[in-house]
Amino acid sequence: MSDQRPIGVFDSGLGGLTVAREILRLMPGEQIVYLGDTARFPYGGRSKDAICSFAGQDADFLIAQDIKMLIVACNTASAVGIEAVREMGGELPTIGVVLPGAKAAVLRTADRKIGIIGTRATIKSEAYTQAIHDIDNDIKVYGKECPLFAPLVEEGWIDTDATRLIAQNYLYHLVDIGIDCIVLGCTHYPLLMEVIQGTVGTRIQLIDSAFWTAKEAQDILSMLDLLSSNSRDGLSKSIFYLTDMTPNFEESAESFLGEKVPAIRHLPLDRLIEGGFTS
Amino acid sequence: MSDQRPIGVFDSGLGGLTVAREILRLMPGEQIVYLGDTARFPYGGRSKDAICSFAGQDADFLIAQDIKMLIVACNTASAVGIEAVREMGGELPTIGVVLPGAKAAVLRTADRKIGIIGTRATIKSEAYTQAIHDIDNDIKVYGKECPLFAPLVEEGWIDTDATRLIAQNYLYHLVDIGIDCIVLGCTHYPLLMEVIQGTVGTRIQLIDSAFWTAKEAQDILSMLDLLSSNSRDGLSKSIFYLTDMTPNFEESAESFLGEKVPAIRHLPLDRLIEGGFTS
Repeated sequence: MSDQRPIGVFDSGLGGLTVAREILRLMPGEQIVYLGDTARFPYGGRSKDAICSFAGQDADFLIAQDIKMLIVACNTASAVGIEAVREMGGELPTIGVVLPGAKAAVLRTADRKIGIIGTRATIKSEAYTQAIHDIDNDIKVYGKECPLFAPLVEEGWIDTDATRLIAQNYLYHLVDIGIDCIVLGCTHYPLLMEVIQGTVGTRIQLIDSAFWTAKEAQDILSMLDLLSSNSRDGLSKSIFYLTDMTPNFEESAESFLGEKVPAIRHLPLDRLIEGGFTS
Repeated sequence: MSDQRPIGVFDSGLGGLTVAREILRLMPGEQIVYLGDTARFPYGGRSKDAICSFAGQDADFLIAQDIKMLIVACNTASAVGIEAVREMGGELPTIGVVLPGAKAAVLRTADRKIGIIGTRATIKSEAYTQAIHDIDNDIKVYGKECPLFAPLVEEGWIDTDATRLIAQNYLYHLVDIGIDCIVLGCTHYPLLMEVIQGTVGTRIQLIDSAFWTAKEAQDILSMLDLLSSNSRDGLSKSIFYLTDMTPNFEESAESFLGEKVPAIRHLPLDRLIEGGFTS
């Protein structure tokens, strides 16, 4: 049996396209229906109530698109609201980016000391710590909020002295503690990979949840016999909805997806909030 | 005749409290009803359509609060959406922060070269340029987007080497051109006053729209005979609505208002968008 329905992916903005990119690399025949809530980006500094409410609205829209799987590609929404989203989906297989990233870190750490970097809401939620301790309670986990990293990436301030100074400020404590791997707990951070690696040194491994999330999606679809029978052309049949057509959204989307994004549509925020898609 | 009704003030977040602060300094008896759209902050990187739509919803709520004047304290909303907001208010005196800031700059410049710094949307709108040229078409105006300044202020990165490096990058070109004053075209920037002044040198005057906007409000209320008969206690009777009770909103609000903010209430984003306040 195969299943030609699309995989639903949502994020607070365009960063979740890194997850879409990895899905299409592993499974080039899969169609994606993506929702980026660019009218309310970023989620990382908002309250838990707001994040859960926004994530619920995002999920409601995607669930109504006849998807076979839902992926919460936003670390903040995954960390804070995955349970609420999972409940909404009922039987629908629903995965976030936190658990795959946590699993990968547990497999990689030799010194049993893991660092997590992310938005304020992600770190405060302690979702990564919980996910790691559910596997091995003896691993030490150290979280660090890095709220300026996402704006720096958004602005293309990647390879600059200011970015390096900010990275040093955020990361030196993790290095001092003696962690041996860091989970990049925000979809924007892989674009800062070189700066972060240069700051913490090559002894510390960086873990990008995007790849591991795509791998988890593949494993689950395979297990449930829901993989598409197509082996290519998934991207050309995919649809990407944005709640705001922000300036330069096409260039920015391309930088995250790694290629030109076809079929970008506007889903006005009022319409998303009005909801009723699944009823 | 006097008028005891409150003055309505809105901003994309908490930065507009700098305008509220100046209003209360000049007119300590005036009551304020403030709306900060913290669930959708910041507006500066969004599309013109989104900014106009959000500003319209903010205005709709405040107009329904029986206010005697409406102040758009958000530079981005002022620059992009003031006309739409003004139309909604009908007879209601409505002012933004752009025109008062532009007027002040025209009065200050000796070399007839003015710099404007602000968000991407504010600079792209050329609203300051237009406002200055409406007064004197021969003045040269140079705009510079500084999109990282607001996140830096939000995170309290004020007096740091990274902030100074970013300021140098943003501002050196304005200095080279030979401007003699800079309008701080975003409510967050006054908190970076020292860094900016240190970067551009003391020969260049910095203009904070907040004071000039409050002064304009006072002049108009006085002219229309709408000033309150109270000479104190305005703050204690003021109400501050936020669309999201973000982490640390109390401390952050205090840093912009300059004192503890009483009576903060939650206006959920869904309720704001649903609207119908004035009908």
